Amino acid sequence: SPDFDFTDNSHRRYNPLTDSWVLVSPHRAKRPWLGQQETPSNPGIPDFDSACYLCPGNSRTSGEINPTYSTTYIFPNDFSAVKLNQPALVTKDDTNCLKSRLLKAQSVEGNCFVICFSPKHNLTIPQMPVPAIVDVVKAWTDLYLRMEREAQTDNKPYKYLQIFENKGTAMGCSNLHPHGQAWCLSVVPNEVDKELKSFEKYSEEHSCHLLADYVTLELQERERVVLENDSFVVVVPYWAVWPFETLLLSKVKLSSLAEFNDTQRHDLASIMKQLTLKYDNLFETSFPYSMGLHQAPLNATFEEKNNSWFHMHFYPPLLRSASVRKFLVGFELLGEPQRDLTAEQAAERLRVLDSDARYLEKIT
Amino acid sequence: SPDFDFTDNSHRRYNPLTDSWVLVSPHRAKRPWLGQQETPSNPGIPDFDSACYLCPGNSRTSGEINPTYSTTYIFPNDFSAVKLNQPALVTKDDTNCLKSRLLKAQSVEGNCFVICFSPKHNLTIPQMPVPAIVDVVKAWTDLYLRMEREAQTDNKPYKYLQIFENKGTAMGCSNLHPHGQAWCLSVVPNEVDKELKSFEKYSEEHSCHLLADYVTLELQERERVVLENDSFVVVVPYWAVWPFETLLLSKVKLSSLAEFNDTQRHDLASIMKQLTLKYDNLFETSFPYSMGLHQAPLNATFEEKNNSWFHMHFYPPLLRSASVRKFLVGFELLGEPQRDLTAEQAAERLRVLDSDARYLEKIT
Ligand SMILES: O=P(O)(O)O[C@H]1O[C@H](CO)[C@@H](O)[C@H](O)[C@H]1O
Ligand SMILES: O=P(O)(O)O[C@H]1O[C@H](CO)[C@@H](O)[C@H](O)[C@H]1O
Repeated sequence: SPDFDFTDNSHRRYNPLTDSWVLVSPHRAKRPWLGQQETPSNPGIPDFDSACYLCPGNSRTSGEINPTYSTTYIFPNDFSAVKLNQPALVTKDDTNCLKSRLLKAQSVEGNCFVICFSPKHNLTIPQMPVPAIVDVVKAWTDLYLRMEREAQTDNKPYKYLQIFENKGTAMGCSNLHPHGQAWCLSVVPNEVDKELKSFEKYSEEHSCHLLADYVTLELQERERVVLENDSFVVVVPYWAVWPFETLLLSKVKLSSLAEFNDTQRHDLASIMKQLTLKYDNLFETSFPYSMGLHQAPLNATFEEKNNSWFHMHFYPPLLRSASVRKFLVGFELLGEPQRDLTAEQAAERLRVLDSDARYLEKIT
Repeated sequence: SPDFDFTDNSHRRYNPLTDSWVLVSPHRAKRPWLGQQETPSNPGIPDFDSACYLCPGNSRTSGEINPTYSTTYIFPNDFSAVKLNQPALVTKDDTNCLKSRLLKAQSVEGNCFVICFSPKHNLTIPQMPVPAIVDVVKAWTDLYLRMEREAQTDNKPYKYLQIFENKGTAMGCSNLHPHGQAWCLSVVPNEVDKELKSFEKYSEEHSCHLLADYVTLELQERERVVLENDSFVVVVPYWAVWPFETLLLSKVKLSSLAEFNDTQRHDLASIMKQLTLKYDNLFETSFPYSMGLHQAPLNATFEEKNNSWFHMHFYPPLLRSASVRKFLVGFELLGEPQRDLTAEQAAERLRVLDSDARYLEKIT
């Protein structure tokens, strides 16, 4: 289409991972904003806070006292969204009964964990040295392997471990001490399930993993590539919803953290640091986001392992500045997600930024 | 299941409208909150603001001057997400080419409108008299009919009119003057498309509309019913995601606003007022939400009309108070939506509240 201008004409793009669309309105970034302002990050925070229930040596709501940990620290969430050992939920499947047709429920058991990334209250991933981030990757890996083991030997009902981080108040983080979470469930959640089904379908049709093809294509086209090292590539995916959303992909097939070697753990830590430094530099603020890992279900079957390809999604809300975010609200909830700049424009802005500590030096 | 306790045991519920799941963790409401606080609504707002680009007589960013309107006022959005008359987007469908396999786009044309609900800067729907809300319903209906006409006679590429309102800064509203929007697109957006497909599938299997059966079931069970009049019923749907999400359904099949009679327009206005008054009373604040109408596509085919059943979704973010909202973030974005109280608990809390002007009287 010689005349169609992707940077000026409205269009929708297809997300083959979730089988859904996003509306792109690249001309809309200029509209006035009288709405909610985010509170930009406050640099003057001490490295220990006696009121923080995640700092070493402090006590938690449960009454337990945190050890004086020096690297990472994992403990069960005191307000776990799922628990072990519930009564069974027996459901009948009677299509003649309205109730059983329309009101469907499943029991979900499991365990939720909090993962402190560092004992220091005022650090964030971009501020941590790469070896300390390697420790986080190792802690995730150990937890993944432990959940697999407990499922096998103790018969725990563990099927999927969702590892994620909410960073910043704009993304619902309720405590700024650097930490992530891991929810271990007896079911494969929606989003992962949709992806696995899309990957399976694609493999059947094209005899190749969707993400293998996608990595090849992005490394050829390069216009959506933000960062790259030997093991991983970070792109703003063609179908990005959040303004500066990124997708971090392993270059070769790794179905889960369990398959990583030392180099890959180092490369993941290093590219995560570079990416989050770029994010911080973009609006010169401690950049909020929700991020998480998608990988193989625990004790995956042959097919599940085949369909899984390690990747991470970063969903950051900021749109124009440290204080103006994108809201995915009315039209987005009722119709479909809408974005105000193209994926290529977002990638370009992130690519040209240095992965240096520019913003961080400014505040210290 | 005699032992399984839906108010204490984690489970997931199935949403038959969108073919997705929500994780329910009813025991989780007690966790501590040190995160972002919403700014509760400020009652001391004048009924005219010279800086507001929606007030009568004021000028907009486009330079145009608003008429001194006295009921509702509709005008094209100065920062429309879609436009008319774009160059054509020609795509090839070559499955041997990686690019055409993985990067799919469609052109989207259309028109976006802003609908001022009232000339008064400081009113909200719950504060408006029922006849004034009837005027809003009529304005929506007129716009729907006008879009149908322009598609037929002027060949405008209009396929779906998404009417919605973002209310409150927590839901991304950028101006508190009471207004909604209507985005008229050349495509049927994601969420509507998913619903129509679910309705079609259900009809084929059960020879009845899914929402007809659902209305029958909810009126029998009553535990999720919040409000009811001759024409409509409001429930917290079994699969609600947002803490106090509601679904407003017509009791008989109306595929769109175009099929409403005077009584139904009045009943819709009246139940919207009652519902939003309950919302305001819940946490004694001007309750934020995104809401919108789902109805038949414009100039619907016989099948589309058959599958459509007028309903409205209300997605309000507040969870525990005027300042503590639910964030749908890390686990929700990466895994699946999670909620902290059951639909039945939310319905009960809304049901027992009066639909009176209690909160509103307090502030005036
Ligand atoms: O058009 P508004 O009210 O300025 O903008 C608001 O609603 C739009 C439609 O839901 C969203 O895309 C925006 O993110 C939101 O801030
Ligand atoms: O567990 P936290 O950090 O207190 O809570 C945060 O993350 C959870 C998982 O994404 C969400 O369900 C909560 O709404 C959010 O505030």
